[in-house]
Amino acid sequence: MIKVALDALGGDYAPDVVIDGAVRAVQEAAGELHVVLCGPQEVVKQGLEKLGYSGDAISIVDAPEPVAMDEHPVEVLRKKPNSGLVTCVALQKKGLVQASVSAGNSGAMMASCLMLLGRTSENFARPPIGCILPTAKGQMVMVDAGANVDEKAPVLVDFAKAGSVFAECYLGVENPRVALLNMGEEEKKGPAVIQEAYQLLKNVEAINFIGNIEGREVLLGGADVLVCSGYTGNVVLKMIEGFYILHNELFGKIDTPAGRRFDETWDYRNAGGALLLGLNGTGLIAHGISDALAIKQACLAACRFAKNGVAQKIGEKLSGMNQ
Amino acid sequence: MIKVALDALGGDYAPDVVIDGAVRAVQEAAGELHVVLCGPQEVVKQGLEKLGYSGDAISIVDAPEPVAMDEHPVEVLRKKPNSGLVTCVALQKKGLVQASVSAGNSGAMMASCLMLLGRTSENFARPPIGCILPTAKGQMVMVDAGANVDEKAPVLVDFAKAGSVFAECYLGVENPRVALLNMGEEEKKGPAVIQEAYQLLKNVEAINFIGNIEGREVLLGGADVLVCSGYTGNVVLKMIEGFYILHNELFGKIDTPAGRRFDETWDYRNAGGALLLGLNGTGLIAHGISDALAIKQACLAACRFAKNGVAQKIGEKLSGMNQ
Repeated sequence: MIKVALDALGGDYAPDVVIDGAVRAVQEAAGELHVVLCGPQEVVKQGLEKLGYSGDAISIVDAPEPVAMDEHPVEVLRKKPNSGLVTCVALQKKGLVQASVSAGNSGAMMASCLMLLGRTSENFARPPIGCILPTAKGQMVMVDAGANVDEKAPVLVDFAKAGSVFAECYLGVENPRVALLNMGEEEKKGPAVIQEAYQLLKNVEAINFIGNIEGREVLLGGADVLVCSGYTGNVVLKMIEGFYILHNELFGKIDTPAGRRFDETWDYRNAGGALLLGLNGTGLIAHGISDALAIKQACLAACRFAKNGVAQKIGEKLSGMNQ
Repeated sequence: MIKVALDALGGDYAPDVVIDGAVRAVQEAAGELHVVLCGPQEVVKQGLEKLGYSGDAISIVDAPEPVAMDEHPVEVLRKKPNSGLVTCVALQKKGLVQASVSAGNSGAMMASCLMLLGRTSENFARPPIGCILPTAKGQMVMVDAGANVDEKAPVLVDFAKAGSVFAECYLGVENPRVALLNMGEEEKKGPAVIQEAYQLLKNVEAINFIGNIEGREVLLGGADVLVCSGYTGNVVLKMIEGFYILHNELFGKIDTPAGRRFDETWDYRNAGGALLLGLNGTGLIAHGISDALAIKQACLAACRFAKNGVAQKIGEKLSGMNQ
């Protein structure tokens, strides 16, 4: 049984969709998952009653303080110990839960996880965000989706190592193909930092580095792990969201096998949140616009990651124990 | 009457599709355009005969030397003066044509244009590529699509100025909205160079700077001009190509008004090549995989740019004459 702490006030449509998502998650996981909803006790209690939930797979920890989306991350950690977000991670630090999930202020979630759980690589000023991208062939892991900026080459190498473990566990791919995002396939193409990372990655035996891929091959599934700066990764992720919105605006839902497959892989809600990598523990951030389906998937993903010891395996790879 | 020089051996399917594209272009432009095909005289002549073209809107300049896609740009300029590519730009330098188009080695085309025509901004080590992106609302200009790397902030400012003029002329938008591509809307977000460019752009009165936009808003049409590094721009452009390929693989041609509109704006072939900005003259690079339609559109775009004096207007904006 895995216990996951969930920030009840996190996200644009909290607390209703968060509570709904929690109920759906424990129902789907049937005995494997317990969710601890951290938020204002009465509000959460009423929310569960409204949904008619009276099982014992969900408990509540009172955490009444709200956190705004634009509050300074470190200030949240310092001044709002009784927020749902900080309470989740604090419970995890105490060993009372095995993972934390928030769809709220992602900077604050990162800072809380970093400071309370600790990091497994000195190279990570912030825990890089590992997210799942849809491709023509299925799915791909991307690191970093936007936590870091102006990374040096050794940081990109650690993105690659962490992403490789994440892909193994999440996608179930053995020896995943790791690629650098670049503007050409040649070693000597692109920004200086990417060229430097290429040279370093060639010599990392612990991962299956296949070289550079371009933006086109990302969508066509040319790798299992895409390594890029947080800036570029954020552009890639947001463009994919934009493609999906635009496609739906133009064509609506297309009721064919291809249409259903497209919807399933391209709908951000199915991705189940993004994993913060390089931490001593499992921390997930979900999209701010998450609905109940997205929250459910994030809880299930957190449960799976904790159960499989993904964070620990990433730590071993980063420290060279798993070369 | 505008004269455009076209590299007959440039592109993966040259010379056949290039000659075909030239014929289509002069037929569509009906008296406004003359194309000078630069390539092996006999080959081009036979190509025109095969298509049954015998008009006087196309002439041939013999330029027998082929240029490979991976030849070093500066070497091509130095050692292959009798290639179609170099001949085009040399004719332009002599004032015999008003624009040049090549679907061949784009680095060599850039180098030839830069060295033979000259640049209008000291900031441009290479002429940035201005290209057209499809959006939910129509089209957007992006600078740079991949000529430069590791740009400093003042270079991005010149991308913005050049892109603004290009958008005015190409999209017919008055006072086009210029945005920086970033990972958030706030001034203090993103890489140091983007933050620095933001501060500089705020004070450029000659353009309508609207701040940062994210990847999602690019596709939704949140600006008329998108300013980004050549590296990131290349990723954006290739992702759009990838999405179009993926969409066609999944759904094929969708025969509805929305489907036809999608096809028209997303098919790279309709974009008419990309303009090299900041040059004393009009130089266009077309996609290596161009077919006859793409070549036709590139010739027509070159004709329009030359007629409207786009290069000259960009030069004036860059030199501050047009503030």
